[in-house]
Amino acid sequence: MKYDNTKIVALCGGIGGSKLALGLNNILKQKNLSIITNTGDDFLYLGFYICPDIDTVIYTLAGVNNPETGWGREDETWKTLDVLKELGADTWFQLGDKDLALHLFRSKEKRKGELLTTITRKISKKFGLSTNVLPMSNHMVQTILETSEGEISFQDYFVRQKHKPKVSNISFKSKKPVATEAVNKALLDKDLDGIIFCPSNPFLSIDPILSINRIRKLIEKHRKPKVAISPIVGHESVKGPTSKLMKEMGIEVSALSIAKHYHGLIDGIIIDKSDEKQIEDIRKMGVKVKLAEIIVNTEEEKMRLAEESIEFIQEIAL
Amino acid sequence: MKYDNTKIVALCGGIGGSKLALGLNNILKQKNLSIITNTGDDFLYLGFYICPDIDTVIYTLAGVNNPETGWGREDETWKTLDVLKELGADTWFQLGDKDLALHLFRSKEKRKGELLTTITRKISKKFGLSTNVLPMSNHMVQTILETSEGEISFQDYFVRQKHKPKVSNISFKSKKPVATEAVNKALLDKDLDGIIFCPSNPFLSIDPILSINRIRKLIEKHRKPKVAISPIVGHESVKGPTSKLMKEMGIEVSALSIAKHYHGLIDGIIIDKSDEKQIEDIRKMGVKVKLAEIIVNTEEEKMRLAEESIEFIQEIAL
Repeated sequence: MKYDNTKIVALCGGIGGSKLALGLNNILKQKNLSIITNTGDDFLYLGFYICPDIDTVIYTLAGVNNPETGWGREDETWKTLDVLKELGADTWFQLGDKDLALHLFRSKEKRKGELLTTITRKISKKFGLSTNVLPMSNHMVQTILETSEGEISFQDYFVRQKHKPKVSNISFKSKKPVATEAVNKALLDKDLDGIIFCPSNPFLSIDPILSINRIRKLIEKHRKPKVAISPIVGHESVKGPTSKLMKEMGIEVSALSIAKHYHGLIDGIIIDKSDEKQIEDIRKMGVKVKLAEIIVNTEEEKMRLAEESIEFIQEIAL
Repeated sequence: MKYDNTKIVALCGGIGGSKLALGLNNILKQKNLSIITNTGDDFLYLGFYICPDIDTVIYTLAGVNNPETGWGREDETWKTLDVLKELGADTWFQLGDKDLALHLFRSKEKRKGELLTTITRKISKKFGLSTNVLPMSNHMVQTILETSEGEISFQDYFVRQKHKPKVSNISFKSKKPVATEAVNKALLDKDLDGIIFCPSNPFLSIDPILSINRIRKLIEKHRKPKVAISPIVGHESVKGPTSKLMKEMGIEVSALSIAKHYHGLIDGIIIDKSDEKQIEDIRKMGVKVKLAEIIVNTEEEKMRLAEESIEFIQEIAL
């Protein structure tokens, strides 16, 4: 295979980023792909320890995700949730019957004292993956949003309040902001070819990962090419509330802003062909630019964008 | 209605006893029926606080039980359990998707600090019942079996090991063996007409209730008629492993043995018509006997046995 010896670390959030993660997973040897996944959205719900982004990544890579919603599992049923509603429980978070089993399993392992990294590896294997899906932390990190409705947690903002509150600031709370052994190992691997920032929301999905100082430092000083894929096309986000959020925080919605946001961390950025006129401004910052069609829907398109990302890394490495 | 003013306390376990409980529930005003239910089988499983007997009683009275198994809900699905098995979890206890919601709800309320009695009342109401389904205790009481395989808990014995180990002794462990306020109130109610020992396993379902000293004392000295319905017909238990257990513990399998077991606590016992020849021996103990067909399958038969139980109480009261 073309990329048999290519080793990549990707930074990824949920739905948006996992599209590229799937492409990478399909073209690389799974064991050569490490996906450092955002856990800033993790929360406790009905006694479960829920990791929405890790679940989305695993479901997507394993091909059991719900292609319509982007989250949750295909052919899902909602029997437990229906009865919970009848019982009068607060069911603002959608728990499918199959999905529930994963939360149950993870919570059980957590209570046994297992590390989230170990649990995630177990789950990945059970879903037939050799890919290194790596939680950014083994400890709870909480993405906190300062909004028009006060300070709220990610799930409250995103799911319960359907990202309606206006956001003025984002911060990350953690008692133990240390990089896990597995993340350290992946980033320090001498055979690593490059680091890819998936087209996830930079503020809500990638920044939580970078909030762990050790991870940010390792990436900052990494000698191998680091490239981002813009989650913005024109003045709109490809997926989710990125553009709404940027406007509220007074940031111009453009690929250029994404390049600025990652400045100092990336060597290059892939932006959409339609954003060609931004090339010069980005290059002025010392960031290389590659054009591609970054809206990817089919599995083939996702693999194509993954190939272009790796080619970009190889070009930069020359 | 015939029994509009009749007020009954029933002691009940799971499947066997709830047949009569359903009969009583159908012929009495629900608010006039208090069912003190065994919680000695309660256990923690995958983080859930599970009360098998309370659930069976509520499901049965609400008419949503699985008529084939006797436990769990009708039209049940097993999606969560299937995925849990795929994930390699130890799934020896059957958790249906609808059933799971009840465990989830109860566990959530428990964590909030609610008493089991309060939670059970909430759940009963949500299932449309005004019946007082009363946990025998708000605290964990554990039925422990000394067996050929060592000392094991009820669920381990009954479900995991399919009641195969030979039982030599049964005991009940509790840190706080106190009667709940609701149980006290039900037994001290001056309008109470009588107490019925449902045809549950005396050793595994009724004895845990009686292991709470206050409950035993209140029943012992109660002036209203107290009647039991034998769970034994001939030399076999109507349901479950009662007869196997009695043999292992060196107790003759007969209605007479049941009368002996409850001696000092009951005024009368209903035994099967086919056990007529035991009448004299039971009467010699000072216990009244009534004959009935105690194997009840249809709802009509259950109501008929309930009526006969109440008539028996009325006869004794004369």
